[in-house]
Amino acid sequence: MGAEKSPSTAEPGRAPEEAAVPADHPGVSELFAVLAYGEISAFYRLAEDARFSPSLRGRVALASMAAAEMSHFETLHTALTERGAEIYAAMEPYRKALDAYHASTTPSTWLEVLVKAYVGDGIAADFYCEIADMLAPEVSTVVREVLAETGHSEFVVQEVREVVERSPLQKDRLMLWGRRLLGEAITQAQYVLAQNEELAELVILASGDLTNIAALFDRMQVEHAERMSVLGLH
Amino acid sequence: MGAEKSPSTAEPGRAPEEAAVPADHPGVSELFAVLAYGEISAFYRLAEDARFSPSLRGRVALASMAAAEMSHFETLHTALTERGAEIYAAMEPYRKALDAYHASTTPSTWLEVLVKAYVGDGIAADFYCEIADMLAPEVSTVVREVLAETGHSEFVVQEVREVVERSPLQKDRLMLWGRRLLGEAITQAQYVLAQNEELAELVILASGDLTNIAALFDRMQVEHAERMSVLGLH
Repeated sequence: MGAEKSPSTAEPGRAPEEAAVPADHPGVSELFAVLAYGEISAFYRLAEDARFSPSLRGRVALASMAAAEMSHFETLHTALTERGAEIYAAMEPYRKALDAYHASTTPSTWLEVLVKAYVGDGIAADFYCEIADMLAPEVSTVVREVLAETGHSEFVVQEVREVVERSPLQKDRLMLWGRRLLGEAITQAQYVLAQNEELAELVILASGDLTNIAALFDRMQVEHAERMSVLGLH
Repeated sequence: MGAEKSPSTAEPGRAPEEAAVPADHPGVSELFAVLAYGEISAFYRLAEDARFSPSLRGRVALASMAAAEMSHFETLHTALTERGAEIYAAMEPYRKALDAYHASTTPSTWLEVLVKAYVGDGIAADFYCEIADMLAPEVSTVVREVLAETGHSEFVVQEVREVVERSPLQKDRLMLWGRRLLGEAITQAQYVLAQNEELAELVILASGDLTNIAALFDRMQVEHAERMSVLGLH
């Protein structure tokens, strides 16, 4: 996760009682668990997608991004253990939806790999960052840490821009690909929320109410469009 | 690299002029380059071999080992850049031999994956540690750092011992597998040395002479047997 979104600075003036979701809400462990499985599945997806790389440099870039996911996984592992949760059992319910996201968005070219690594992780980061704002500080610190920039997105931006600037055909294809990534991500996010009551309650609490959840998904579309634009896809 | 060998403590009393191989020997960049490609190829081998894992825990263990390789790669990247070498060009000559090692030792079971991760990395670590003793301190520091324990070998030891203690058939198979790993590693090491004069000179300087190289390979066999024994393979 987190090829894109910078963690916003903490709000030192905010008292813990202002958090919409208290640190002991049972949905917090569920949130950490879905994030943790997200890191593992992103690791293996990046490692597998590297087979499309035309160069050793590309393989190294993807391996570095994958390694950063594992460092985030360790943070979540520690956080879950501190909450008394067993990480492997906790992740189990989320395997199906996350594996389904990757299965439905398997890249078939190196450019699709790069756009997915950048845009797909960005969509997830947008969603979690929106929620993080309303969590108790000790929880939001963990969420922001695992969504931090991995520092390799510059490589993706350069590679993609260079191609789409000279090929309208590639540009059209990648714009459709980006739209598909967003659609599949939202489908699977809704599936995850429908599946776990505690997590759904956490998201509703964090958003305020159901109307706000709709507004949250709208903002994600805007942020997605901005990110596509950075890649020259607009 | 380095699932096994602990870095020995530095020798603070040793003056730089005692090093058999000076820091500016041209073989040093070659040594860093072959180590760097070793990390990349180990990363992708571990990620690919994880498909044999019967559990999510096993997939996480292999991903963590793979991530540690990338941290070592970064150390070598920095060291090569400081020496004015371009890492991708520098690694290129070593791809063939290292890829050949992995192609000739592709595991076909989860236990073979674990034994290869433990024993294969151990063989490489033994070889490089022997050489590191004779390098200039600023060079041997880098070599020892990238061969450091990755902290996940305990998982391998437990998994393998548990099986071989109750299955003589598995034990016999894995003993043959271990022997094959050693044979292929030595074959490819000799191929690498025959291919690059500067690296070969570095190894000869570090060993003293050709007789000592033979003694070095003998010691590696002893260390290999000890490592197999830790896995219950003796």
